Amino acid sequence: MSLPVVPSGPCYHPGTEHQYEYELVDGGFFELLKGDNGILVCVRGYPEGLVTCNIEYYIKGNDKLVMSLDEIRQLEEELGEKLSSTRTHACPALKRGGELHKYFPTADERLLEYDIDKTLYEEKSPFQKILIVHSRSLGNLLVLDNLQNISESDLIYTESLMQRGKENYEGKEIVILGGGDGALLWELLKEKPKFVTMLEIDELVMKACGKYLRSCCGDCLDKYKGDNYEIIVEDCVKVLKKYVEEGRKFDYVFGDMTDVPLSSTPQGEVWDFIRLILDLSLSVLKPQGKYMTHANGASCPDALSMFEQQLNKLRVPVDFTSSHAFIPSFMEDWVFYQVTMKS
Amino acid sequence: MSLPVVPSGPCYHPGTEHQYEYELVDGGFFELLKGDNGILVCVRGYPEGLVTCNIEYYIKGNDKLVMSLDEIRQLEEELGEKLSSTRTHACPALKRGGELHKYFPTADERLLEYDIDKTLYEEKSPFQKILIVHSRSLGNLLVLDNLQNISESDLIYTESLMQRGKENYEGKEIVILGGGDGALLWELLKEKPKFVTMLEIDELVMKACGKYLRSCCGDCLDKYKGDNYEIIVEDCVKVLKKYVEEGRKFDYVFGDMTDVPLSSTPQGEVWDFIRLILDLSLSVLKPQGKYMTHANGASCPDALSMFEQQLNKLRVPVDFTSSHAFIPSFMEDWVFYQVTMKS
Repeated sequence: MSLPVVPSGPCYHPGTEHQYEYELVDGGFFELLKGDNGILVCVRGYPEGLVTCNIEYYIKGNDKLVMSLDEIRQLEEELGEKLSSTRTHACPALKRGGELHKYFPTADERLLEYDIDKTLYEEKSPFQKILIVHSRSLGNLLVLDNLQNISESDLIYTESLMQRGKENYEGKEIVILGGGDGALLWELLKEKPKFVTMLEIDELVMKACGKYLRSCCGDCLDKYKGDNYEIIVEDCVKVLKKYVEEGRKFDYVFGDMTDVPLSSTPQGEVWDFIRLILDLSLSVLKPQGKYMTHANGASCPDALSMFEQQLNKLRVPVDFTSSHAFIPSFMEDWVFYQVTMKS
Repeated sequence: MSLPVVPSGPCYHPGTEHQYEYELVDGGFFELLKGDNGILVCVRGYPEGLVTCNIEYYIKGNDKLVMSLDEIRQLEEELGEKLSSTRTHACPALKRGGELHKYFPTADERLLEYDIDKTLYEEKSPFQKILIVHSRSLGNLLVLDNLQNISESDLIYTESLMQRGKENYEGKEIVILGGGDGALLWELLKEKPKFVTMLEIDELVMKACGKYLRSCCGDCLDKYKGDNYEIIVEDCVKVLKKYVEEGRKFDYVFGDMTDVPLSSTPQGEVWDFIRLILDLSLSVLKPQGKYMTHANGASCPDALSMFEQQLNKLRVPVDFTSSHAFIPSFMEDWVFYQVTMKS
C-alpha cells in the first residue's frame, strides 16, 4: 500500500487506483483511503498541525497481514518525510476483536498489552467477574473485574504486603480479609504462625485459584481447615463484627481486598467500605498489632494521599509506614501500608 | 455524545444532528459520525461480525475532553447492549501528537504506555539517537534508538547481568564492552575488583547518563580514569583486537551492548557483530574466565535459541548458563547468559 501526499485543502483525486472520500473537518481535513484486502486508512489533519493516520484491517485465519514494527516504522519515516514533519511517532498494531483480550490498563489508565495466549478460566461469581489467563512471560494471571490481581510472577506482591524479613509471624494470630487467591495465606503459613483465619466471600475465586494459581497458593485452598489455619467463606465485615463482640484480638490483620479507589473525593460506597474495614480491623488488633494492606499504584498520588487522610481521621489514632514494590503483572510500582495504633 | 445503532445495510440518516457518511465496504459497512468539538467517530463493521469504533479528537490547552476509563467502559457497555454483543472490549485513549512520546514496545512488539512526564535530554550522537525521559514511576529512563535501555528502577538489570551474589569480583580483572550508562561499572566497582576497563564508543551517552542517571552510575563517569578503572572511548572491536595481539587476558568480559536481534535467520550485520564480539571476548578470557551478557526478552524464544546456536558453533567450545529477571523499565522478563570455555 502506498499513501499519497495529503494536500491541505479540499480536493478530489480522479483516476487513481484507490477510492477517496474527502472533506474539510473544522478547518482541517479528513481522507478515507481504501486499499486491497479491505484495508481502510483514515488520515486526519488538524488545523494545529497534527496529522493522524489510522490503518485498519481484518486478519483472516492464517493471514500474515499484520504489519511488523519495522514496517510500521518504515512507513512512519516515509510519511514524516512526505509531510516534512520533524516529529513522527508510530505505534504497534492494536489487536482487536480476537478471542483473547490482551489489554489491561495501569492504575493511572495507561494502556498495556500483555502477552496473553490462552484463557484458562472465565466465570461470573455473585461478586465479581473472574478471569484467569496465561501470559507467556508472567505465567497464569488472575483478573478480577478487569483488574490485574496476581500472577505466578508476583511473589514480590505478597512479600511486600507481608513485609517479609521485617515482620516476625512465628506464633502469631492473624486474620486475612479477602486474599482469595491464597498466595498470602500460603506465604504466611511458611512463617510458622500460631493460627491464620482467612475471611473470603467468594468461593469461586478460591476454587479457580486452587486450580490455576497453584504455584502461588500451594495446596492451602484444597481444604478450608488445616492444622494452623481456617478459611471462612463469609462477608468479612460480618465476621469482624462478631469478633469485636466476642472481644477477640489478633496480632495482624491483612486487608487484601479492593484497591483504594480513584475518585475526586474520598466519598462513596468503596470509601465507606474502606473506612469500615479500617475501623473494625483496629478494633480486633492487640495493642501492638498491625494492620497491613496494599493501596494503589504509586502513579496515583491523589488516591494514596486520600487514603492517608482517612488513616489520620480514624476513631483510634494511628501511626503508619508505607513501602512500595514494582509488581511484574501490574507493570507498575504498587504501594503498601503498615498501620499501628499510637501507644 | 450518543451513538446511534448502526444498521447492517447502506442507508442515509436525514435530519439528525450529526452528519453521516456511509458506504458498504467489502460486504461490511463503514460509517463516519461527526460530533461537537471536532470529534470524529469511525464505525466499521466486518462481515465476520466484528464492529470497531474509533473515537478521535484533539485536546486543546486545558480541555478536559479526554474520556476517562469509566466513561469509555460505560460507552462500551451501551454499545455492547445495542449491538447485542456478548464480547466487547474498550481501550484507554491512545495519546498522540503531544510533546512527549509515551509509547515504547516490548521485545515482542507489544504496546506499552509509560507515565513519562518530561524529556530531559534528546540528542543524536554519531552512533545513535539518545533520549532520556522522566517516568513518574520509574525515574529517569534512557532510551537508545527507540529501545528502553535502563532506568533508575532497574538495579535488578545490572545485578542479573553481573549475577551479584553468585560471582566473586574481588581482585578480578574485568572488561566491559559498551555499558555507556555506567551502571554496570558502578556496581562492579562496589565489589572491589582489581581493575575494570570499559570500552564505550559513544561519549555523548556517558555525558548524558553522568548527568541524568546519577543514581545508576554514581560519579564513575565524571572522569575516565580512577584508582581501579579506566574508560576508553573507542570501538571495542579495535581494542579487543589489540588485546588479543598483546596476549592480555581477563577474568570477566561483559557484553553490555546491543540486544540479540529479532530476525528469521541469524544472518546480517548485527549477527556478524555478535559473533565477532563473542570470538574476540573468548580470546581475551583466562581459561576460567567468564563472558557475561544480556540477550533479549523471554518473550522472544526464537531469538534466544538462535543466540544459543551461535554459542554452540563458536571456534572455542563453550558451556553456558542463563538466567532471567523481570526488568521494571522493560516491563518484561529479560534473559542473561553466562559463558565459559569448556575445560
